[in-house]
Amino acid sequence: MGVVISFEEEQAKAETALVRLQALVADDMIKVNQTILHKMHSPVALIPQLAGHLIASGGKRLRPMLTLASSLMCGYQGDRHAELAACVEFIHSATLLHDDVVDESDLRRGLETANAVWGNKSSVLVGDFLFSRSFELMVADGSLEVLAILSNASSVIAEGEVMQLTTANDMDTTEDSYMQVIIAKTAALFAAACEIGAVIAEESTKSGKPGPEQRALRSYGKNLGIVFQLIDDVLDFSAEQEKLGKSVGDDFREGKVTLPIVLAFRRGDAGERDFWRRTIEELDQKEGDLARAIGLMHKYDALTDTIERARHYGAIAKDALAIFPEDEYRKALTDIVDFCINRAY
Amino acid sequence: MGVVISFEEEQAKAETALVRLQALVADDMIKVNQTILHKMHSPVALIPQLAGHLIASGGKRLRPMLTLASSLMCGYQGDRHAELAACVEFIHSATLLHDDVVDESDLRRGLETANAVWGNKSSVLVGDFLFSRSFELMVADGSLEVLAILSNASSVIAEGEVMQLTTANDMDTTEDSYMQVIIAKTAALFAAACEIGAVIAEESTKSGKPGPEQRALRSYGKNLGIVFQLIDDVLDFSAEQEKLGKSVGDDFREGKVTLPIVLAFRRGDAGERDFWRRTIEELDQKEGDLARAIGLMHKYDALTDTIERARHYGAIAKDALAIFPEDEYRKALTDIVDFCINRAY
Repeated sequence: MGVVISFEEEQAKAETALVRLQALVADDMIKVNQTILHKMHSPVALIPQLAGHLIASGGKRLRPMLTLASSLMCGYQGDRHAELAACVEFIHSATLLHDDVVDESDLRRGLETANAVWGNKSSVLVGDFLFSRSFELMVADGSLEVLAILSNASSVIAEGEVMQLTTANDMDTTEDSYMQVIIAKTAALFAAACEIGAVIAEESTKSGKPGPEQRALRSYGKNLGIVFQLIDDVLDFSAEQEKLGKSVGDDFREGKVTLPIVLAFRRGDAGERDFWRRTIEELDQKEGDLARAIGLMHKYDALTDTIERARHYGAIAKDALAIFPEDEYRKALTDIVDFCINRAY
Repeated sequence: MGVVISFEEEQAKAETALVRLQALVADDMIKVNQTILHKMHSPVALIPQLAGHLIASGGKRLRPMLTLASSLMCGYQGDRHAELAACVEFIHSATLLHDDVVDESDLRRGLETANAVWGNKSSVLVGDFLFSRSFELMVADGSLEVLAILSNASSVIAEGEVMQLTTANDMDTTEDSYMQVIIAKTAALFAAACEIGAVIAEESTKSGKPGPEQRALRSYGKNLGIVFQLIDDVLDFSAEQEKLGKSVGDDFREGKVTLPIVLAFRRGDAGERDFWRRTIEELDQKEGDLARAIGLMHKYDALTDTIERARHYGAIAKDALAIFPEDEYRKALTDIVDFCINRAY
């Protein structure tokens, strides 16, 4: 029982960290949301309809909050951070629209996906629109350095997604190649979202020179992104997830080789490995297979050890913040690492 | 017979215009192709494979040639034109990859499409990669004006594609709304490709101020793009097309309402309109329907009048070039208008 209570306490603390970050950037997030609504407008009605469905569907808006908090921690005063945070959310939204097409998903955050409602074609094209619109916004902001960071992040993300596609259904995937995929497809945008906060703060000073803050925030963001994805992959097999009305086992059904599967496979015996090859490589899945998969993960501590790995990267993220003054922003960004580790599992 | 000969002469003249433009920019196109090959490289092997399949599949490379010729006509001397021409081709290629997914096409230029070979998922993601990579290249070039023009063109293209999706299968589409779609989905990139040629020439002069060349080339490119798309839509119903081993009637089968269909529908009687509603709106198509559609187009001069419309926009394109000195570049760009009107039909 003791363990259960401490686990629930962790989760409550995690929620508090998120709420605290939200409160800290609440005024600026109003501007971000206004920019998003304003810039996703188009005379072609389907565009704001579809984009609005996704954007209103209640994501945590973690990435734009990171841009805001990062810039404020670096002493930035101005309005660029809100515009650029909106760009980050647009890139993320475009990625989600295309992801759902690629994954053939019907549900996201418990709601029907845009592709389920409007079809794949619309999702592909509105994704392209959001992506282009995000670049228009960045160009209007006018910083070539910010443009370089976010355009690079975008192509790294696409590279990561293609890499994921080519490693899907392959049980010989190593932890290293899994890490390569998630660093590209997820951590790159977290890194960029934080880094640009430092860049605009630097650009607003007289010298305009890049300082250690930029590299520190890039490192923080990258490692936080890794944490986020590792836990996302754990949550897909989590009973807690089911309690929240979210679907469980999506990755398993698609044959996506995430770290919990990599670990359970490698630690398993010959018969268990056959099970993984049948279900993941051949996608030959029967009733009870998901339960057996989760059972094997528990048998070999695949989920708890994935969380352990997440703690490792979380510690790196926190240490990256050490050069900043101990203010409310640094505290919020530090605590958000724990939120990402302890969220809803 | 006289008519047939003069028509074949027109076509031969058209081909000559293309060959002349190709010769004029041949050296620079080598640099463009090198940049394309170099920049589509990725450690994720599927990316250069898939992108290479598309890029090597023998497009005319009209858009990058327009950037080169436009810049040279404005007196540009340097290497930026080749890099930016590659960006234009990347954006175009990304659009084609996503188009083929949206249109569910199996063939492009007589070859299997990338989505037919590698699947829709890969095409969506590699399209995203090419698109992002194109922005990275532009950022490395460093002109915010060029970035503004091309990022705007990209979101206008996406808007146009969504618009096309929402007007598909709708026989009440007017010529005006058809024009709105093609100006966005096709002419915007032609306009941008030409305009940036003027921009880099201006930026390389001392004053750096925008001159009348920029607007002239934008207008030229836009109208040329309209010509190009109008003729593309005619070619989809052309017997010549069939002789070249290309498929005929793709737009018809998809229920895409192009100008030949708009004209044939509006000029038809009640029974013929029922035919169009059944085949295009309900997509209820039987053997012989395509032949009947083409028959109705001939009955009402829908194809020849679409070509007449193209001549109208072609004339505007040519007049837009009047401010330039009468050199070989202006001649090549003028003649390429006729090429676009007379090509392979």
